[in-house]
Amino acid sequence: MYEVEMKVRATHEAVRERLSALDATHVGTVTQIDTYYDAPHRDFGETDEALRLRREERDGDAATRVTYKGPLVEAASKTRRELETGVDDGDEMNDILGALGFDSAAIVEKERDRYRLDGYTVTLDTVADLGEFVEIEREAPEGDIEPVREGAAARLRELGLDPDDQIRTSYLGLLLE
Amino acid sequence: MYEVEMKVRATHEAVRERLSALDATHVGTVTQIDTYYDAPHRDFGETDEALRLRREERDGDAATRVTYKGPLVEAASKTRRELETGVDDGDEMNDILGALGFDSAAIVEKERDRYRLDGYTVTLDTVADLGEFVEIEREAPEGDIEPVREGAAARLRELGLDPDDQIRTSYLGLLLE
Repeated sequence: MYEVEMKVRATHEAVRERLSALDATHVGTVTQIDTYYDAPHRDFGETDEALRLRREERDGDAATRVTYKGPLVEAASKTRRELETGVDDGDEMNDILGALGFDSAAIVEKERDRYRLDGYTVTLDTVADLGEFVEIEREAPEGDIEPVREGAAARLRELGLDPDDQIRTSYLGLLLE
Repeated sequence: MYEVEMKVRATHEAVRERLSALDATHVGTVTQIDTYYDAPHRDFGETDEALRLRREERDGDAATRVTYKGPLVEAASKTRRELETGVDDGDEMNDILGALGFDSAAIVEKERDRYRLDGYTVTLDTVADLGEFVEIEREAPEGDIEPVREGAAARLRELGLDPDDQIRTSYLGLLLE
């Protein structure tokens, strides 16, 4: 399965009105504080890797995960090797990484408010220092990527947004620009 | 508080008989499989650091912790900076460390059978590839280190062991010799 994903800048107030009019289902809100690290022995920007500590809060429950993302294996599908585990104590994990020479390079803090609409997930992201975005995504089997992408574009238009405004840069990338 | 600790090679069968005769209390058994890592950018042997993933099983419950130990801050008391957190998935953590360039340098696998004797903890360690050891330990305030050490030596003698046989090298050190 492939993850089809489009992201645009958008004012949430107007989008929420459209979601309500289209009878979208509210899924829930999650807060994510992501710390990305520099490596002491190679440049993750050049090697296209990432090391992330994510502190997540959902309905009052907090969880922390450490994730390694390897370089793109296949560019078209954006497939990467991803390794992840939950950790009990995010501060200790951050300090362990620091002691090993991995320093915090950037912190991405966002609130994500999720809706379901016609089989798509619509996420209203409020990102600290960047502002408001809307992301639409859905999994697709390899042969169905194009129709699913067209469907995502159609949903964006229903929400009063322009798929041509798509931003391909990650929030981390936008913050580091 | 300081950790006073003495370790000698010993055949467990004879020590168990002495522990029983001395009315020691059996605390429980734990299995520990410790993986120690090499760093890609410095020599932990030279910097006197350690990075360890410990998989522990106690009464059927499994737990994994990742621990960083810094260099000795104070040689006499063997004080080190120690950072630690539990992790949900030891295999993923091991793979994340591997992807970041930290390779397994040694694995120390041991079964630890603990007893309490006159305020001391007596641990019967069976270490893979090394054999059987007995460790005696107790916390002591700074002013009381010497009497607690003498008490540990006295307990070892009660167990039919010779404190002069003390081994100061860690199991990891013995394995790497």
